[in-house]
Amino acid sequence: MNKELKIYNSLTKQKEIFKPLVEGHVGMYVCGPTVYSNVHLGNVRTFISFDVIYRYLKFLGYKVRYVRNITDAGHLEDDTQEDKISKKARLEKLEPMEIVQQYTIDFHKVLDLVNNLPPDIEPTATGHIIEQIETTKDILNKGYAYESNGSIYFDVVKYNNEIDKYGKLSGRNIDEMIANTRELEGQDEKRNPQDFALWKKAKPQHIMRWPSPWGEGFPGWHMECTVMSTKYLGEQFDIHGGGMDLKFPHHECEIAQGKTANGVDPVKYWMHANMLTLNGQKMSKSTGNHLLPNEIFSGNNDKLSKAYSPAVVRFFMLQAHYRNILDLSEDALQAAEKGYKRMMEAIKLLDKLPVSDNSSFDINELITGFYTAMNDDFNTPILIANLFEAVKYINQINDGKATISQADKEKLSKAVKDFTFDVLGLHKELQETGHNQAFDKTIQLLIELRNQARADKNWALSDKIRDELAKFGIILKDGKGGTTYSFK
Amino acid sequence: MNKELKIYNSLTKQKEIFKPLVEGHVGMYVCGPTVYSNVHLGNVRTFISFDVIYRYLKFLGYKVRYVRNITDAGHLEDDTQEDKISKKARLEKLEPMEIVQQYTIDFHKVLDLVNNLPPDIEPTATGHIIEQIETTKDILNKGYAYESNGSIYFDVVKYNNEIDKYGKLSGRNIDEMIANTRELEGQDEKRNPQDFALWKKAKPQHIMRWPSPWGEGFPGWHMECTVMSTKYLGEQFDIHGGGMDLKFPHHECEIAQGKTANGVDPVKYWMHANMLTLNGQKMSKSTGNHLLPNEIFSGNNDKLSKAYSPAVVRFFMLQAHYRNILDLSEDALQAAEKGYKRMMEAIKLLDKLPVSDNSSFDINELITGFYTAMNDDFNTPILIANLFEAVKYINQINDGKATISQADKEKLSKAVKDFTFDVLGLHKELQETGHNQAFDKTIQLLIELRNQARADKNWALSDKIRDELAKFGIILKDGKGGTTYSFK
Repeated sequence: MNKELKIYNSLTKQKEIFKPLVEGHVGMYVCGPTVYSNVHLGNVRTFISFDVIYRYLKFLGYKVRYVRNITDAGHLEDDTQEDKISKKARLEKLEPMEIVQQYTIDFHKVLDLVNNLPPDIEPTATGHIIEQIETTKDILNKGYAYESNGSIYFDVVKYNNEIDKYGKLSGRNIDEMIANTRELEGQDEKRNPQDFALWKKAKPQHIMRWPSPWGEGFPGWHMECTVMSTKYLGEQFDIHGGGMDLKFPHHECEIAQGKTANGVDPVKYWMHANMLTLNGQKMSKSTGNHLLPNEIFSGNNDKLSKAYSPAVVRFFMLQAHYRNILDLSEDALQAAEKGYKRMMEAIKLLDKLPVSDNSSFDINELITGFYTAMNDDFNTPILIANLFEAVKYINQINDGKATISQADKEKLSKAVKDFTFDVLGLHKELQETGHNQAFDKTIQLLIELRNQARADKNWALSDKIRDELAKFGIILKDGKGGTTYSFK
Repeated sequence: MNKELKIYNSLTKQKEIFKPLVEGHVGMYVCGPTVYSNVHLGNVRTFISFDVIYRYLKFLGYKVRYVRNITDAGHLEDDTQEDKISKKARLEKLEPMEIVQQYTIDFHKVLDLVNNLPPDIEPTATGHIIEQIETTKDILNKGYAYESNGSIYFDVVKYNNEIDKYGKLSGRNIDEMIANTRELEGQDEKRNPQDFALWKKAKPQHIMRWPSPWGEGFPGWHMECTVMSTKYLGEQFDIHGGGMDLKFPHHECEIAQGKTANGVDPVKYWMHANMLTLNGQKMSKSTGNHLLPNEIFSGNNDKLSKAYSPAVVRFFMLQAHYRNILDLSEDALQAAEKGYKRMMEAIKLLDKLPVSDNSSFDINELITGFYTAMNDDFNTPILIANLFEAVKYINQINDGKATISQADKEKLSKAVKDFTFDVLGLHKELQETGHNQAFDKTIQLLIELRNQARADKNWALSDKIRDELAKFGIILKDGKGGTTYSFK
């Protein structure tokens, strides 16, 4: 098998052969959600993309440490907070951590439904305030940040002149950025509009605040990812992922912070997942062109005619390459649902296929195709196309139109299941939606047949139906309104 | 309804009428797990007990803020760590937060299975290091702690002499404690063996460590609960819960820390849940008299003959009062399983009961009994006994041996469901274990009937069975080896 994995590096803008910093180990950091609202469907796409990347790296035998943060450090303000509210009234005040808890639970539930594996470490911004203060002190001591009115700002121009080009990831030029920026209100604290906060002074109405050498405040958003990736993966690590929209300024700032603090480029391979659109338009709450994951799973929305299971949504998302824009629509989901069912039904046939002396197709070539697809920058749509080649053969063998040997059957079965369930992380079972309903109708059909048997005075048959059902734990009870059943 | 709730206060050792500090609001803090191993079954009992307390307080109309912490601040040491391991080898080192993640996920899964509601806030020790350092500084400044070799210890004797009696919760006397304690090795840092650490200096092999005014170290265990309860519930709050084993020294130390830092007793009502034993003996890993929650749910253990569902385990645990020792055994679980099924089946009948002009029993008295039980220090076994009174009536009405009016039926239905599902938090549906198996056998029975019809040349019947099943999405396929089915 060709196991030379290539990854498209957003930093060099080309596919590169993947070579981890420490042989056999991979350190991977992905920017997680801000837990002040329900997780966005576009973010779910990003996390599914990196879940498959994580799965494939592990499948190739790497020991992967996957870190994905939770941004819980707060920008929430309490407008109602008055001085007269005493400390005793603590319970009556808005508590940001209640909001954090609610949306963290929602986030985990959604990712669990789409069958994502949890990351190995899920650190929170509030869990690393000390580390953020320490790194801010460090950058301040090195002269690449300055204090202004209780806040600490990173000096982008000095960094750009003395350490490295600011903008190298996003392809921006600092002189142009400065030339194009008008002075914004409230930014007079900064020497330059491009400078960004490492630490912000807390206004009186700001609830989440911590003591620091510069007074009470809270960390700048970019800082959390720098300290958490450094703490758990080292000053340099292999893969940093996130949504395309985080490239600038967030990831650009991470590079600047890391390189200033630790003297090295923090990340070897930068990876960015592309956008999800809805019916050809950007999703946006304000325009109403918007869908939440749970609205799709429940069918409770005005964009789609029915519910689509998390399994189908995952399959749909993996049918596009992570670096391409993906458009969600009714038609696309319907096609995905059909494709997913077709694949699962073929897999169910796999182990029951009749075997022959020879195989009528080249099994090794087929399987090599699975690896080739994934080794080419995790190309899941090509992998799925190759898996459908296998589906075609499986159906042909089942219909007696192709043959497979016992050894090849075992090889094919293992490879198809490995890539479908372990690598793509597709749900093993067709979603059980509707199963209970079909079960009920099946029992009702038996009740009807039994009633007919009784009308025909065929007591042997009517007793048989009742007794057999009782053996399965289904108890029939004849009453005035007809026959009902219960589970023993 | 009598809504005067009484709570047994471990501090006063008597039942007291519950009166919250802030009208209409309840602040409740419960000591959570240390996430370095699978959650202990005894802890699950404690968390189910406080889940019911939380549920009942909300049911009574209180706005409850329920805080339960996660102890993730580490006592893990890395014995293999050598100086020659460079920073670059970060990925090869033991990372405590990976262990924390693994067991936090396990903990949440188990509590979710037993149908516990998540707390409103679930703070972590590592998320509150700054607060712990600040409170340690405060106690140090007030003169009730001292530094010794980079660690900070609370001066228990000084607290006992000047502020309050140390031991008032657990009923211990400090002079006796001192008289009974021999000097232990390694405790020479302390002025007195009863003194406890607010902050510990980190030894070189200690992995989890943070900078502090006293050098690198980590917080003492008691401190996290003091700062997190204060931060989210205030300097004084209503209810503090935990397992009986935490009364001393953990909760005693919390009182001492809180009263010294804030000048007030932190907690109005202290509540302690009692022990769970297994086959009459204390559970212990070393003796092998031990069961994990998942071992019960899966049946994968050498203590029980079969699996018991999380619903049955919850029901079993609520059949004892939280302040009594509860013994888990095969017999007790079997009885619980039977009782739980009986209750659920009666509830299924409730809305279908025939109504009469009058009720043959006093419905209000019955319902008042539900409240009376819970108002008496959350007496769940009495509540369950009262619910079984309702079950008895439901079955009598169903069998035509008792009567109920339409108005009473609605009242009874609401009360039974409220107390069963909302207050006790029992699972709404009988666990689905075995359902898929029964479904399969039901379809097989229809296939058998169809085969018989075909043998009888009763084509109308055989077609009917095939066509009806197809309507429910079950497709029959006749092949060489017989008839198989698949879901459309």
